[in-house]
Amino acid sequence: MMSKKIYVINPNSLHTVTGGIEEALEPLRIPGGPEIECLTLAAGPPGIQKQQDVDSVVTPLIRQVASLELSASAFVIACFSDPGLHSLREITAKPVIGIGEAGILTALTLGQRVGVIAILPESIPRHLRYYGSMGLLDRLAGELPVNLGVAELADREQTLERMSAVGSVLRDAHGADVLVMGCAGMAALRNRLQEAVGVPVVEPCQAGVAMVMGRVLLNWHST
Amino acid sequence: MMSKKIYVINPNSLHTVTGGIEEALEPLRIPGGPEIECLTLAAGPPGIQKQQDVDSVVTPLIRQVASLELSASAFVIACFSDPGLHSLREITAKPVIGIGEAGILTALTLGQRVGVIAILPESIPRHLRYYGSMGLLDRLAGELPVNLGVAELADREQTLERMSAVGSVLRDAHGADVLVMGCAGMAALRNRLQEAVGVPVVEPCQAGVAMVMGRVLLNWHST
Amino acid sequence: MMSKKIYVINPNSLHTVTGGIEEALEPLRIPGGPEIECLTLAAGPPGIQKQQDVDSVVTPLIRQVASLELSASAFVIACFSDPGLHSLREITAKPVIGIGEAGILTALTLGQRVGVIAILPESIPRHLRYYGSMGLLDRLAGELPVNLGVAELADREQTLERMSAVGSVLRDAHGADVLVMGCAGMAALRNRLQEAVGVPVVEPCQAGVAMVMGRVLLNWHST
Amino acid sequence: MMSKKIYVINPNSLHTVTGGIEEALEPLRIPGGPEIECLTLAAGPPGIQKQQDVDSVVTPLIRQVASLELSASAFVIACFSDPGLHSLREITAKPVIGIGEAGILTALTLGQRVGVIAILPESIPRHLRYYGSMGLLDRLAGELPVNLGVAELADREQTLERMSAVGSVLRDAHGADVLVMGCAGMAALRNRLQEAVGVPVVEPCQAGVAMVMGRVLLNWHST
Amino acid sequence: MMSKKIYVINPNSLHTVTGGIEEALEPLRIPGGPEIECLTLAAGPPGIQKQQDVDSVVTPLIRQVASLELSASAFVIACFSDPGLHSLREITAKPVIGIGEAGILTALTLGQRVGVIAILPESIPRHLRYYGSMGLLDRLAGELPVNLGVAELADREQTLERMSAVGSVLRDAHGADVLVMGCAGMAALRNRLQEAVGVPVVEPCQAGVAMVMGRVLLNWHST
Amino acid sequence: MMSKKIYVINPNSLHTVTGGIEEALEPLRIPGGPEIECLTLAAGPPGIQKQQDVDSVVTPLIRQVASLELSASAFVIACFSDPGLHSLREITAKPVIGIGEAGILTALTLGQRVGVIAILPESIPRHLRYYGSMGLLDRLAGELPVNLGVAELADREQTLERMSAVGSVLRDAHGADVLVMGCAGMAALRNRLQEAVGVPVVEPCQAGVAMVMGRVLLNWHST
Repeated sequence: MMSKKIYVINPNSLHTVTGGIEEALEPLRIPGGPEIECLTLAAGPPGIQKQQDVDSVVTPLIRQVASLELSASAFVIACFSDPGLHSLREITAKPVIGIGEAGILTALTLGQRVGVIAILPESIPRHLRYYGSMGLLDRLAGELPVNLGVAELADREQTLERMSAVGSVLRDAHGADVLVMGCAGMAALRNRLQEAVGVPVVEPCQAGVAMVMGRVLLNWHST
Repeated sequence: MMSKKIYVINPNSLHTVTGGIEEALEPLRIPGGPEIECLTLAAGPPGIQKQQDVDSVVTPLIRQVASLELSASAFVIACFSDPGLHSLREITAKPVIGIGEAGILTALTLGQRVGVIAILPESIPRHLRYYGSMGLLDRLAGELPVNLGVAELADREQTLERMSAVGSVLRDAHGADVLVMGCAGMAALRNRLQEAVGVPVVEPCQAGVAMVMGRVLLNWHST
Repeated sequence: MMSKKIYVINPNSLHTVTGGIEEALEPLRIPGGPEIECLTLAAGPPGIQKQQDVDSVVTPLIRQVASLELSASAFVIACFSDPGLHSLREITAKPVIGIGEAGILTALTLGQRVGVIAILPESIPRHLRYYGSMGLLDRLAGELPVNLGVAELADREQTLERMSAVGSVLRDAHGADVLVMGCAGMAALRNRLQEAVGVPVVEPCQAGVAMVMGRVLLNWHST
Repeated sequence: MMSKKIYVINPNSLHTVTGGIEEALEPLRIPGGPEIECLTLAAGPPGIQKQQDVDSVVTPLIRQVASLELSASAFVIACFSDPGLHSLREITAKPVIGIGEAGILTALTLGQRVGVIAILPESIPRHLRYYGSMGLLDRLAGELPVNLGVAELADREQTLERMSAVGSVLRDAHGADVLVMGCAGMAALRNRLQEAVGVPVVEPCQAGVAMVMGRVLLNWHST
Repeated sequence: MMSKKIYVINPNSLHTVTGGIEEALEPLRIPGGPEIECLTLAAGPPGIQKQQDVDSVVTPLIRQVASLELSASAFVIACFSDPGLHSLREITAKPVIGIGEAGILTALTLGQRVGVIAILPESIPRHLRYYGSMGLLDRLAGELPVNLGVAELADREQTLERMSAVGSVLRDAHGADVLVMGCAGMAALRNRLQEAVGVPVVEPCQAGVAMVMGRVLLNWHST
Repeated sequence: MMSKKIYVINPNSLHTVTGGIEEALEPLRIPGGPEIECLTLAAGPPGIQKQQDVDSVVTPLIRQVASLELSASAFVIACFSDPGLHSLREITAKPVIGIGEAGILTALTLGQRVGVIAILPESIPRHLRYYGSMGLLDRLAGELPVNLGVAELADREQTLERMSAVGSVLRDAHGADVLVMGCAGMAALRNRLQEAVGVPVVEPCQAGVAMVMGRVLLNWHST
């Protein structure tokens, strides 16, 4: 089985994001462990910001997952809104994990009240609907946006600064004692953000692959 | 404005279902009220049972809603899983109502604990996720399936019998004091089901159009 | 049946409030639609501010609803605390809607987190108890008062200004993406408040009648 | 202050119920403790079964509480629906406790999941609304009625048998590990019911006076 | 039975804290009432701040409760984290009350939204877990620390000032309409704190003994 | 770092249970992955059934964890009640995972409603308090005991039969679509239980180590 792969699919079409994910997963690649392959969804939009973006990638994701099924041991959907998660679980008995759920669930073991740092304010109501569907609102301290556009996000120092500022507000005014980065591709900032805010920080792509690794090793499939 | 229409879109491709909806809405057609037009989503699957079916109709629904926007006063999505609801709200400032949310919200004014009669067991986890995203689980008595296939549903007497049986279990074992029919196109059974079980029954297509009518008259658009 | 009326009962004795409600409902009066008649509860107090005021109007409301029953198609209780709602539902099988519940339920279809603008701080614990009894606290962003007395409310510009200020705090500090006016008789300010704060605003008297109209047309009675 | 009394007001007009309450409180009458006086609300209905009954006693309760205020150290409202609780708290700074809230809150310290034995099924939705307003639904195992009329309740052995049967269903099918008697005047059955079902049983009138006694001794008033 | 005692056990080893508790309970000592004896847990740490402190006192508490069982009518654990509560309930059928639960449950009858004033920020996640286990989070306005060390707490005026400041934030920014002092031994400040903030304040040791007194008189034991 | 170990500590003193855990973790031992060492807590009781058992192992667990700290990369507490979890997190910055939390959180990614199979009925209220403290009650379908003593559990076929029976009740009467084995040391039955009931089954020891493996590889420590 170990020759099969964990496919980590970035559902937006930005190869730089996939590159950031790739790099973030380096420590999870070990000799006897499952192979990890990161892919960019060719049919995806350049960014997933609106509900339409989320919904639009489900059909291509289904197609891609179906085409990879034979060589797969598991799938990780590398977008914080977990597009297509439940559809994908219908077409494969192999584990499918979304980085949104993985990020939040991991945070539940690191603190009592979870603060989420979103990129854009428009995503927040969508995320809240999702946390509600997961039944996890009692553990949510709050979610706030850094409010940076794609261009601005490229400036890592500024992004870190904004994330630290937002994280501090979540900690001080909302009582968060653990933070989740509500986006993919920013793992490089995790350590410094954790140091800056002084509470544990979860990077969701790492959390997603970490969560599925063991399941692959255990060969847990849904019935 | 009154020359504009409430479009009720059946996202599955079955014209008989659309016909049942059409008939159900007859009482809501009044001289000074908004015109109501029922449509079948040509690109829809023959039935919406799995999450994939739900997700698959979002893109064609967006296209259809966009094409109707100029002549529309509002949209009602006539499938209990409310496919594409939040995507559609992004592309039009006109009211968009899903019959799932309308059915449940209407039930909240008719009883304290809501029982939902589903068609198939597979839909129930999806519906539960949705009620969770709406924050309404504290009012849910339970959801149980009649477990009838498409062919069997054509037998109205049998369907009524099964719905009455399931509704009685929801009332007696789960404490439901109001029921929602968790599907479109069965309005013809509502009165008899209500009589049989002895608690108010909500037909969601009627609930959906009823809920949006006033909003059209008031000319309430989102900002 | 259409000759029968929707009675909208203002349970305080202020005819100016009833006048404001009357005006607000103008768009909902349509050929073929149910007749709408607004009444002032003669026995009501000049304002409903305390729990005692709420409780004190139930007996006269029961008497009034009973006396109107034959000519009624439905009743709307035009006070945000929904006084007597469940008692009234015991004495008539015709629909009875409170503007409090209608306002909140309508808001649930316009945003994910509901902010309520109250008039007085004393009302807020009572409203919170009510939202709790409706099982809707997970969708509440918060409720804040404008804290204006009856005399001050007469100054519409000042009232709008305060409502806008309070609405902005609910939006920015509490994450509200939809607002409900927690009082009757101020429909004239709805459009401007929505423009000022930039999120949908629900006027509860309009929401209440809008919600019951369809039910009257469908002839839905409780069993 | 100790010369002042805890007034326990039975809001229905049945002196036999008041007598049962009187007897139940005997152990709470101690030297140095607050005097306890049980009263029957003359204006009350013969039984409190519907929401109308609950609402109808608020005005006479307010009058009675106001007339007793000078000689009172506290008030206990001896009906499980806690009629007028929040209105009464507005007219006196002295402690006012409802036996419904006291019964449930006491149960929270005796078990993890609370089962309530109601007299009539009609009361259950009202009680559920109340538990919701108290924010306590997560601790409710369920509520079931004995479904006995006033005449039948006079037969104590039959009543005990039915309560034991209902209590056993709450324990076995609903997971209750503590029970509350959802009515006043049946304290004489508490011990035998607890023995029969094998989980702690709370009698709410006793719970109500027990809860307010200390507050009287501490002289805690609301501000 | 009345010759038996309510043992109030301070699980930290500070006799001054026990002294403060002793004094606070004076009004609850009445001629015909249960005797109240305050004890200091010799094996306890000098303060209970971390989860380790909480867990470390359970074994000595069990030993102490077991040794006192014959002469006890009830036990009150006088630490806001309610250490060992459920273990102690396993070893005695006599009532065991924690001041944390008693404080919060008492507050539920004095306001709609409870604010808790903690001593140290480290305790808050632990308290939140506890409120969650009690199912009471819907009534929590928030919890904030005064952030004073043991030495600083000795300065009563400064402590009162900080508590008043924190209480005012809970009232104004978090909507608390009742406060609980989240610690033992500060009863002397209750009255002044209540006056300063203008909402009811619960002192948990008093609440704990008050809650158990009636149970002792009623001779309620678990089965 | 990879020379450091994940210590899996069985807090009861039964070496056969530790042996079962050891065996269950075989698939998670891979080249390049963290070493996994299973230990039996010498000071532990022969079984952890009551709250006292849970509380009694915290102090020896703290001692053991402290003594292993230098050579540890992470700790897994192999008892479904997660004894000492939060105390242990105070004494080490290395990841500490309880198999109870890991079992439930893993289940959240495999179904919508979680059913838990407990060994003894006495554990259920304790587990419910824990799920409440985790804020996860909205996802709990129910928990039921197999009600087998230690001797009976040794008969694996009988145990499987009872687990299958209880699992089927959770699936059919409580709506569970994923199950968690609420105990350690029974991994050998997982596959057959999953086949028998037809829904995914989570074995919590495997889930616990699987959940912490990635964290070790990522070198995530709390701050």
